[in-house]
Amino acid sequence: MKNYLRIVVSCQNDVHIGSVIGGFIADYHGDILEENHYVDRDNRTVYLRWVISIDVTLISYAGFLFNFESFSKCHDFQWLMVDASQKKRIAVLVSKTSHCLLDIITRQEEGELNADIACIVSNHDDLRLLVESHGLPFHHIPVARNNVTEANRVIKDLLVDYDVETVVLARYMQIIPEVLCQFYHGNIINIHHSLLPAFVGKSPYQKAFDRGVKLIGATCHYVTSELDAGPIIHQDVSRINHTFKPQDLVRVGKDIEKKVLLRGLMYHLEDRIVTRKNKTVILK
Amino acid sequence: MKNYLRIVVSCQNDVHIGSVIGGFIADYHGDILEENHYVDRDNRTVYLRWVISIDVTLISYAGFLFNFESFSKCHDFQWLMVDASQKKRIAVLVSKTSHCLLDIITRQEEGELNADIACIVSNHDDLRLLVESHGLPFHHIPVARNNVTEANRVIKDLLVDYDVETVVLARYMQIIPEVLCQFYHGNIINIHHSLLPAFVGKSPYQKAFDRGVKLIGATCHYVTSELDAGPIIHQDVSRINHTFKPQDLVRVGKDIEKKVLLRGLMYHLEDRIVTRKNKTVILK
Amino acid sequence: MKNYLRIVVSCQNDVHIGSVIGGFIADYHGDILEENHYVDRDNRTVYLRWVISIDVTLISYAGFLFNFESFSKCHDFQWLMVDASQKKRIAVLVSKTSHCLLDIITRQEEGELNADIACIVSNHDDLRLLVESHGLPFHHIPVARNNVTEANRVIKDLLVDYDVETVVLARYMQIIPEVLCQFYHGNIINIHHSLLPAFVGKSPYQKAFDRGVKLIGATCHYVTSELDAGPIIHQDVSRINHTFKPQDLVRVGKDIEKKVLLRGLMYHLEDRIVTRKNKTVILK
Amino acid sequence: MKNYLRIVVSCQNDVHIGSVIGGFIADYHGDILEENHYVDRDNRTVYLRWVISIDVTLISYAGFLFNFESFSKCHDFQWLMVDASQKKRIAVLVSKTSHCLLDIITRQEEGELNADIACIVSNHDDLRLLVESHGLPFHHIPVARNNVTEANRVIKDLLVDYDVETVVLARYMQIIPEVLCQFYHGNIINIHHSLLPAFVGKSPYQKAFDRGVKLIGATCHYVTSELDAGPIIHQDVSRINHTFKPQDLVRVGKDIEKKVLLRGLMYHLEDRIVTRKNKTVILK
Repeated sequence: MKNYLRIVVSCQNDVHIGSVIGGFIADYHGDILEENHYVDRDNRTVYLRWVISIDVTLISYAGFLFNFESFSKCHDFQWLMVDASQKKRIAVLVSKTSHCLLDIITRQEEGELNADIACIVSNHDDLRLLVESHGLPFHHIPVARNNVTEANRVIKDLLVDYDVETVVLARYMQIIPEVLCQFYHGNIINIHHSLLPAFVGKSPYQKAFDRGVKLIGATCHYVTSELDAGPIIHQDVSRINHTFKPQDLVRVGKDIEKKVLLRGLMYHLEDRIVTRKNKTVILK
Repeated sequence: MKNYLRIVVSCQNDVHIGSVIGGFIADYHGDILEENHYVDRDNRTVYLRWVISIDVTLISYAGFLFNFESFSKCHDFQWLMVDASQKKRIAVLVSKTSHCLLDIITRQEEGELNADIACIVSNHDDLRLLVESHGLPFHHIPVARNNVTEANRVIKDLLVDYDVETVVLARYMQIIPEVLCQFYHGNIINIHHSLLPAFVGKSPYQKAFDRGVKLIGATCHYVTSELDAGPIIHQDVSRINHTFKPQDLVRVGKDIEKKVLLRGLMYHLEDRIVTRKNKTVILK
Repeated sequence: MKNYLRIVVSCQNDVHIGSVIGGFIADYHGDILEENHYVDRDNRTVYLRWVISIDVTLISYAGFLFNFESFSKCHDFQWLMVDASQKKRIAVLVSKTSHCLLDIITRQEEGELNADIACIVSNHDDLRLLVESHGLPFHHIPVARNNVTEANRVIKDLLVDYDVETVVLARYMQIIPEVLCQFYHGNIINIHHSLLPAFVGKSPYQKAFDRGVKLIGATCHYVTSELDAGPIIHQDVSRINHTFKPQDLVRVGKDIEKKVLLRGLMYHLEDRIVTRKNKTVILK
Repeated sequence: MKNYLRIVVSCQNDVHIGSVIGGFIADYHGDILEENHYVDRDNRTVYLRWVISIDVTLISYAGFLFNFESFSKCHDFQWLMVDASQKKRIAVLVSKTSHCLLDIITRQEEGELNADIACIVSNHDDLRLLVESHGLPFHHIPVARNNVTEANRVIKDLLVDYDVETVVLARYMQIIPEVLCQFYHGNIINIHHSLLPAFVGKSPYQKAFDRGVKLIGATCHYVTSELDAGPIIHQDVSRINHTFKPQDLVRVGKDIEKKVLLRGLMYHLEDRIVTRKNKTVILK
């Protein structure tokens, strides 16, 4: 029997750390399924990711983790070890539009998404039927001008109650409060319906239409307290022309949005992303 | 023997103008080689473009033009008629980088570009050898802080002397003065090395690197007096990732820039572009 | 009150037919919403498409149709007139995989697909639950070696009973018999999971894997009696690399397949496609 | 002072070889500039590539090579070590079309191509002027039905005389004989103007036109004795439609061809490609 795990490492000033950790893995007869290295010369930093399996008759997951922790103390690197057999628990926050949410649910049902959907939270009740028809819990938490703080507290409690690890904003049209950004730091993923940094904020398709651009895009990024300014994970575009009215941009954009969000979310779920300052390294 | 000509029309509030003009063309036994229509419902405007040939034994180009002008007075539309056998005369303005210029020259030599290159003007002398080796006139007009107005006057005189119709800014790193924008209104094409409206102004690749975007792009647009804000003609992108340093963006960007500029320039040379407010309709 | 209709015309040897028909439309005060022309010089053929509205207080749809038919007899062109307010009735034929079918159903529910789904037919019973949960009729018609003719007769009767106009093969893994190809000539659309003409027939992803290609694709085409050889409507590709195993090609391919099928189907539903010999002209 | 070198390794049945070799590099205080790993589970093979620098005051290139060779004998892996400061010498074989050749020459002049162009060989004399204007040697070796063997012998002798390592077929319209395929095994790169395996052999654009495809492509591959059947390195496509005549496919195709050939050639020049059976692993 095997334990599968992911190890993600970043390390400054020691380009040989990869072979050192590789040696540690070899010592425990770990089998290497994936291995990704990136050497950032300018910042003197290496980024490493392994997917390995270890034989439980040789060492337990806990034992390997314990020993790796000890081993790491003799070296100077940041690391993360994840039990690859445990799916991450995600919550999806939505408003009224269903396309991104439905894509996530369908992929999850078809086994393409390595995650458990813990719950759906919305500031509107519109998507309740859709969500519940897939057997998922739906929570309607209205957010009005006079209850923002309270509503966000309720949302946070919900996420904690559901043991949520990753929060996906699938066209959720509310600002995420600083306190939630902090609490789920590096684990809130948003899809913005423009090619950031163009068209930050509201109504990007209308702005794109008004400017007469010939490509529209979408951006998947981590959420930070500054609006639409977090580390970018993935982006893609679709060609448009003068015949496209704002409603056509919305329609075409839906397909890019779900595609870009899905890709970004999958990178996150597979622990392929390391953020450094306001940027992402994606190990694939 | 045939005369080839292009007719480009825009018309408000009369969707049937196309068949009326089509009837006019038929009356003169014009042969239709290309025909493009676009009906903009929201603005109640139709855009039309024909490439036709007329038999010179039946009517001369001048005669046809004269009659079309009379005919147009009975109707209410904007129009442009171009002798398709006459290549447009272009001037290319450059600074130090050669990739866009060289692409234009090579395409022209290979017969892919329907234009005559009248001259190359630069604020630096670096590309003289390259230009002259292709048998083209090169003019070095230095632009310094204290001679901007005078330099731009010299440039304008040059363009006029060379009978230039279309000015191509192929990575020309100077502001085009208002007076030149006016004089060549709708006939100055620029390539900007970002996906506008993102990264307006200087050093877009460095800004793209700093923001950590996952796609870089280029924009071909008409020049107006507001910097990087004119009507967009064409845009394209290239995928990048965390391994790309600023110099890699510059290198990858060069290929997008020349591709986007060429495409936009060809639309212009073939009279496919109609501008309306700050946007372009491209009839193809 | 308005009647909306589409007129699609192809005509040989008369480039001015467009303005003649345009004049006819103008005579009835038809309002032009869309107009597309393509002049194929080499084959001396013009292809035309209009979307127009006519005022029912001036003339009924039937009246306009009758008069157009009379008018057409004085000229020599092929034509098709379609009541644009009537959605086409489609049947979707599937086997075991659901992704293309589910995409079609979802788009239809979201109002993106201008069609009514009459029924789903499958040679397997696997997708019954999915189909019926969307309130659509599902028919399981097993096809075995010894009942092919009978099964196909049953399928044809079903399609006729449901008044089906367009048959969509959404990964239906059976040969369509000659008789059905004839009966629904020009109205059966297939998605093939390769970039035709590469990898005709079975297991294209395995063949693509074995050949070591760097792009995989999908092709939407009209079905003719020759396997995977009908007129191509739309194609697209996705980049792969050496890390992709056959099952990865299947997974990535699913997204291209549904995208390409949808696009091709929409062209068909909007009467944008004219076939000539074994090729398509797509008026957009 | 530094020596820069590339190490490319493939190894069966030992997933830990990466850290072992990494340890060897660390022992010599090698600085790691790039590191790429790919674990092919199905074939139990790992592919590894490093770009490293070593301090010449610690060990010479020859010394490091000698020691690595000894070290490799204690393990079971294939390897290649290349002095990264030495540019590969390439010969370009062409017929009459210049676009791929000119792109290679221009890139080389601009410092984008990590190679020295040793000579240009052609079966026609058409491109002599172009080649010689760039100061490069041009050899016209006519190939006629009755002198094929002799002509190819002359070509081989030329390539050997020029000390050529990599042969680039930049639209060279002759079959490469078995003997040359063998001699330069894994070092002859061809650009084929279709998306292989579609349209093998002559006139792929005409075939693509006749079939009515909606995408055309190009394929860069290693040459083997079977025509157009060698390991594929890179492919790309461009969208076309019904308005494209065969000559348009040729024109549009030129841009894809040079882009695809350049990318494939650069992978080769940077020693990123490992072939296994008839496929390529590209370490980037």
